[in-house]
Amino acid sequence: MKKIINDPNQTVFDMLEGFTTAYPNRVKQLEGTSVIARKDAPVANKVAIVSGGGSGHEPAHAGYIGKGMLDAAVAGEMFTSPTPDQVLEAIKATDSGNGVFLIIKNYSGDVMNFEMAMEMAEAEGIQVEKVIVNDDVAVEDSEFTTGRLGIAGTIFVHKIAGAMAEAGASLQEVKDMAERVVNHVRSMGMALSSCTVPAVGKPSFELADNEMEIGIGIHGEAGIHRKPVGTADEIAEELTEKIITDLPYKEGNEVAVMVNGLGATPEMELFIVNGKVQKILHEKGIIVYRTFVGNFMTSLEMAGCSVTLLKLDSELKKCLDAPSDAIAFRV
Amino acid sequence: MKKIINDPNQTVFDMLEGFTTAYPNRVKQLEGTSVIARKDAPVANKVAIVSGGGSGHEPAHAGYIGKGMLDAAVAGEMFTSPTPDQVLEAIKATDSGNGVFLIIKNYSGDVMNFEMAMEMAEAEGIQVEKVIVNDDVAVEDSEFTTGRLGIAGTIFVHKIAGAMAEAGASLQEVKDMAERVVNHVRSMGMALSSCTVPAVGKPSFELADNEMEIGIGIHGEAGIHRKPVGTADEIAEELTEKIITDLPYKEGNEVAVMVNGLGATPEMELFIVNGKVQKILHEKGIIVYRTFVGNFMTSLEMAGCSVTLLKLDSELKKCLDAPSDAIAFRV
Repeated sequence: MKKIINDPNQTVFDMLEGFTTAYPNRVKQLEGTSVIARKDAPVANKVAIVSGGGSGHEPAHAGYIGKGMLDAAVAGEMFTSPTPDQVLEAIKATDSGNGVFLIIKNYSGDVMNFEMAMEMAEAEGIQVEKVIVNDDVAVEDSEFTTGRLGIAGTIFVHKIAGAMAEAGASLQEVKDMAERVVNHVRSMGMALSSCTVPAVGKPSFELADNEMEIGIGIHGEAGIHRKPVGTADEIAEELTEKIITDLPYKEGNEVAVMVNGLGATPEMELFIVNGKVQKILHEKGIIVYRTFVGNFMTSLEMAGCSVTLLKLDSELKKCLDAPSDAIAFRV
Repeated sequence: MKKIINDPNQTVFDMLEGFTTAYPNRVKQLEGTSVIARKDAPVANKVAIVSGGGSGHEPAHAGYIGKGMLDAAVAGEMFTSPTPDQVLEAIKATDSGNGVFLIIKNYSGDVMNFEMAMEMAEAEGIQVEKVIVNDDVAVEDSEFTTGRLGIAGTIFVHKIAGAMAEAGASLQEVKDMAERVVNHVRSMGMALSSCTVPAVGKPSFELADNEMEIGIGIHGEAGIHRKPVGTADEIAEELTEKIITDLPYKEGNEVAVMVNGLGATPEMELFIVNGKVQKILHEKGIIVYRTFVGNFMTSLEMAGCSVTLLKLDSELKKCLDAPSDAIAFRV
C-alpha cells in the first residue's frame, strides 16, 4: 500500500483538519465531531441541507458545502456510514428553525443511521425531511444494500436541493424538488483498478491486468460483469446505453451530463469518454444543456469513471444554474 | 497499460474534442489546430494571455481558459512541446490589437517553440511578450532543460496575469506583474508512482514498491533522491522546508498555498498534506492568505503531489482574488 498518509487509522481525522485549515473562511468543523459545516451555519430563514456518508469519496461530501449547496457534511470512517449521533450534530448545528433536509445515498448503513438521527432530531422538536438517492442502474440489490445504490447523481441532488433552499423554498418544496431529481437521474460506473482502505492495507478487490468491471459501485460492489478492457468509446457506449434505456431518456429531452472520475483516472480520459457520450446523445436527439467533467464522487485511488444523466425541465435548469460557492462544484 | 482511451496515438485529439463538447458555450477549438480559445476570442481592448505545453497535465492548460485567466491554450502531444505554428495560431486568434502575453514553463522545447512563434508573430506585426516560469526548487538543471523547471506555480501566473489583462493593464504591465509572480513563487513535488504515455505503452520510470521520489518533475524528471515512502507529515515537511528556505519566505510574509495532486492521488491525501503544510507555516509565522487543494497540474496517472508557495503583496492579492470563470480554478 503506497499512500501519502500518517496513521492509517487517523486518515479521516487528518483529512478533516486539512480541509478546514484549507478553507477557514468558508467552513468550520463542529468541535469533537466529524461534521464540517458552513462557516455561517446556521443560516437564518433557510432550510438547511445536510449530506454525508463514508469517507474516501472526496470531494464528496465536504467539498459541496457552500452557499447554494450543502450546509453541512458528515464524514464517516473510510467507506463506513457516519453514526446517528454525528448526523444529529449536523442537524442541530444547521437548523435555523426552518427545518433540515437530509440527502442520503442508498446504502443500508447510511439509510439506517440517517433515519435514526432524523428520529432523534424530531424528538428534539426539529423538522427533518429526507431523500434517498439511488441513481446507479447497474444492479438491483448489491452487497449489504437493498435496491439500487446512490452514486455520482447525488451531486445533482445536492445542487438542486441547495438552490431551492437558498431561494427560500419550504422544507416540503425542497423535498419535492429533490425527489424530482432522484426520479430523473441515472448513473453507471466502471473500474480499471481497485482501491485500498488505509486501515485494511490491501485492495478491496482484484482485477486482472487486462480486465475491467462494468457497473461497479463506489465501494467496489460487484457490478454487471468483468471483461477485457475496452476502448473509451465502447465503455462510454455500454454505460450510456444502459442509462438511456433505463429512465428512458428520449429524443427531445434536455439533460445535464456528468462524467465522473473515480479518483485515479487522468482528466484526459474523462474528456475522451465525454466526447463519445456527447456523440451518442446527439445521435439520439437528446439535447445536452450542461456538462460536468471531473472527480465529483470518488473511490479513493480507484481508476475508472461513471456517467450520469439528469433529465431537466425549466425549474431544474434554474436550480442547476443558480450560483453556488461550493469549492468542488463550478456552474 | 490500463487506460480509458481509443487509439493511443489519438488521445490528444480525442481529449480536445471531449473538452470542447463539454463546454461549447465557453470555448472553441481553432479549426485544424490543437488550440483551444475562449469562445469570444479575440476579446476587444484586452491583452490576450496564451499558455500551453505538452498534454498529460490536465486540467492544464485548457482548464484555465476563461474570463480573468487564459484566452487560449495550446496543446502539444503527450509530454511534448506544441509546435511554433500552433502557438502562432493561438497568438493570431486572440490578439485584439493590444498584444499577446505568453506564459511558458521552463522546458527547453517549450521555450524554443514559444519564442519561435513569438518571432513569427512579431514579423506579422503583433506585439508579443513572455514570461518563463521556473518555480521548481528541486534541481537546477534537469534532463533536457537548463535551469529550474516550471511546474504547478504556473497556475498562479495564469491567474494573476489573467486578472491584470482583464482589468485593462498594458502588455508591459502584465509582463511586470507576471515576473513578480515568478520571482515570488516556489514549488516542489514528489511521486509514489510513475505514469505511462499511451503511445509508449510502458511506464516512464520505475519506483520500487516501498519507494518514493522527492523533487520529481511533472514528466518524471529525476528529482533529489529516492527513499522509502515517508509519512504525509514527513513528505510535507521535506517539500515545504526546501521551498521556504529557497526564496526565502519569512515570518510575517503572506502567502498563497497550493497543494497539487499529480493525477492519481486521492483528494483525501492532498488534504492530509495540507494539514501539515499549514502547521509548518503557522509555526514559522508565515501567514496563509488563501489555500488551493486539488489537481491543478498533473502528470497523467502519476501518484504524488507538489506544494507551491506564492509570496503576496496587496496587488498580487487583488489579482488572485479577482473573479475568473475558468473551469479548473475557483477563487
